[in-house]
Amino acid sequence: MGKTLIFGHKSPDTDTISSALAYADLKNKRGENAEPARLGPVNKETQYALDYFNVKAPQLIEKVDADVESVILVDHNEFQQSVDNIQEVRIAEVIDHHRISNFETKEPLYFRVEPVGCTATILNKMYKENDVAVSKEVAGLLVSAIISDSLLLKSPTCTKEDVDAAYELAEIAGVDLEKYGLDMLQAGADLSDKKITELLTMDAKEFAMGGERVVIAQVNTIDINQVYHQQAQLEEEIDRSIKEKDLGLFVFVVTDILNSNSDVLALGRNKDKLEKAFDVELKENRALLEGVVSRKKQIVTTLTDAYSE
Amino acid sequence: MGKTLIFGHKSPDTDTISSALAYADLKNKRGENAEPARLGPVNKETQYALDYFNVKAPQLIEKVDADVESVILVDHNEFQQSVDNIQEVRIAEVIDHHRISNFETKEPLYFRVEPVGCTATILNKMYKENDVAVSKEVAGLLVSAIISDSLLLKSPTCTKEDVDAAYELAEIAGVDLEKYGLDMLQAGADLSDKKITELLTMDAKEFAMGGERVVIAQVNTIDINQVYHQQAQLEEEIDRSIKEKDLGLFVFVVTDILNSNSDVLALGRNKDKLEKAFDVELKENRALLEGVVSRKKQIVTTLTDAYSE
Repeated sequence: MGKTLIFGHKSPDTDTISSALAYADLKNKRGENAEPARLGPVNKETQYALDYFNVKAPQLIEKVDADVESVILVDHNEFQQSVDNIQEVRIAEVIDHHRISNFETKEPLYFRVEPVGCTATILNKMYKENDVAVSKEVAGLLVSAIISDSLLLKSPTCTKEDVDAAYELAEIAGVDLEKYGLDMLQAGADLSDKKITELLTMDAKEFAMGGERVVIAQVNTIDINQVYHQQAQLEEEIDRSIKEKDLGLFVFVVTDILNSNSDVLALGRNKDKLEKAFDVELKENRALLEGVVSRKKQIVTTLTDAYSE
Repeated sequence: MGKTLIFGHKSPDTDTISSALAYADLKNKRGENAEPARLGPVNKETQYALDYFNVKAPQLIEKVDADVESVILVDHNEFQQSVDNIQEVRIAEVIDHHRISNFETKEPLYFRVEPVGCTATILNKMYKENDVAVSKEVAGLLVSAIISDSLLLKSPTCTKEDVDAAYELAEIAGVDLEKYGLDMLQAGADLSDKKITELLTMDAKEFAMGGERVVIAQVNTIDINQVYHQQAQLEEEIDRSIKEKDLGLFVFVVTDILNSNSDVLALGRNKDKLEKAFDVELKENRALLEGVVSRKKQIVTTLTDAYSE
C-alpha cells in the first residue's frame, strides 16, 4: 500500500497542524501508512502547543511528490488554500469544518465536513468511532486546536460539541482549560517580533468571491495599536500583494482576543464591498467591527453576500 | 423550527427516492421536521419497490418554496443535477456517494460523502449511529436502492459495506435478495412502452467536463436490440437536445443487465472524446463497451480524463 500524506491549509494554524498530526496518528494506529505534513511555517501559538506536549512538527512540503499515492486534506477543502499541485494528486479524504467551494474530484471519496468550530472536534469523534484511545499528547494537540479556533470557546463558531470535546480532551491532556488556553493564545498573540510580511501572511486565506480574488489575513493580539503602529508599511505591502495577484480586495483583520472585536484594514478596488457588508465607513482604510472575531462565520459569509448582491 | 425538504437528483432513480424517504423517516423519528420530495417522475423499477413495500412516493416539486427553511440533498451534490433554484436555498446537509463537483456554499454544513456504491448504505449506517431501528418498509426501500445501484451487487461500484448492508436489510425487509432483486430489476428494465424522449431522460445526468456540457443518459435492459430498434428516432431526439442545450456530447448508455455490458450511442461535437476515452471506434455512432455498467465509476471518470488530456 502506497503512502498517504495528510495536511491542512497553507499558512497553517493550530487546528491545521494538530489535525494532520492526530489523523496520521489515528491512521497509523489502524495499521495504515500515513504521514502528516504542513504547507508553511509553524506559528508561535502552535509552537507553544507542540513544545508543551513535546510533539515534533510535521514535515514541511512545497508540493506532493510523485511517490505519494494519495492525500488527505484536513481543515480545508478549497483548492487555492491547498498544496500547489493539488489538481495532480488523488484526494482520498477530506475532513473539514469550513464552507465547501472550489473543490472537485473525478472520483467519489470520503468527504466529511461538519458544521462545528474545529476539525479537531471531528477527529476526537473519529477516534471514538474507531475505538482508538486518544493519547495524552494527541489530546493536548486537539484541545489546543479547539482553543485556537474558538478563542477559548468564545467565538460564535463554537458549538456544544466543541465545548464538550474541549473539556474532555483537557482532562486527558492533564491541563486546566482556562489557564492553558490563555497562555497558549497569548503566546500566539505576541506579534512584537513579526515583520510586516509575516503579519500579512501568517494566517492569510484566499477566497473566490463574485469572480474576484479576495485575501483575508487575520492576526490575534492583545494590543491593536501595537499592530497598527506601522500602518503605512502594512498598506505598502498589501498594495504590492494586490498588484502581484490582481486581488479585488485584501482585508487585514486584527482581532483583539481580550475584548472580542476586530479592527480591519481594507485595500483594493472592491473596498466598497466591505463597507456594504458591514455597514461601516472605512476611515484611513480602517474600521472597527464590533463583536467580530470569526473570519469564517462572520467575515467570509457577510462579504460573500455583499459580492453576490 | 422551519421545514426541511429532503430530495435526490433530477430523473430520480431508486436510490434517490429511497434515500429521501428513509432520511426523512430517520429525521422524523429524531423529532425533526423533515419531508421527502422528488424532482421528477417515479420510474418503473422504483414503483415496483414502492408497491412491494406499500410506501407512497414522495411529493413532486419543481422548485423549493419560500416557506422551506433548508434543504438536504441526498444521492447528488452537483447543482446542475439538483432543483432549479438550488442557489437560492440554504443547504443544511448533503448525504451522497458521488464525486464532488460544482458544489458551493457560503456557510459550513454537514456534508457526508463516502465512496460506497449507494447512498442507502450510508443511511443504513446513520440509523445505527442514531440508535434508531430500521422498519420493514424502510429496509425494503434501502435494499432496493442497493440492488438498483449495484445491479444486484455486480457493479464495480459495489463495496463490501454495500454487500453487508444489502443482506442485513433484505432480512429485515423479509425478502430473498436474489429473487426480489431480479424481479425488481426486470420491472425496471421493461422499456417496451417507453417513448423515445422517456428513454433519453428517465435516468439522464448532466456533467461539466473541460468547459463543455455533457449529458449521459442510461437505461437498463435485458434486450439491447429492442432499444436500438428505433435508433434513427433516438438520434433525432438527441440532436434536438444537443442544439437546445448546446451540449458538447450526449451519450446514451444501454446497459445489458444480464451480460453486464453497455452498448452506447454518442452524438455531438465531442464524439471523439468518447472514442479516445474507451479506445473504441463509433460505428453508426455506436460502440459496445465490454464490462461497463457503471456510469459513475466507469464512464464519468474515463470521459473526464479524456476531456482533461
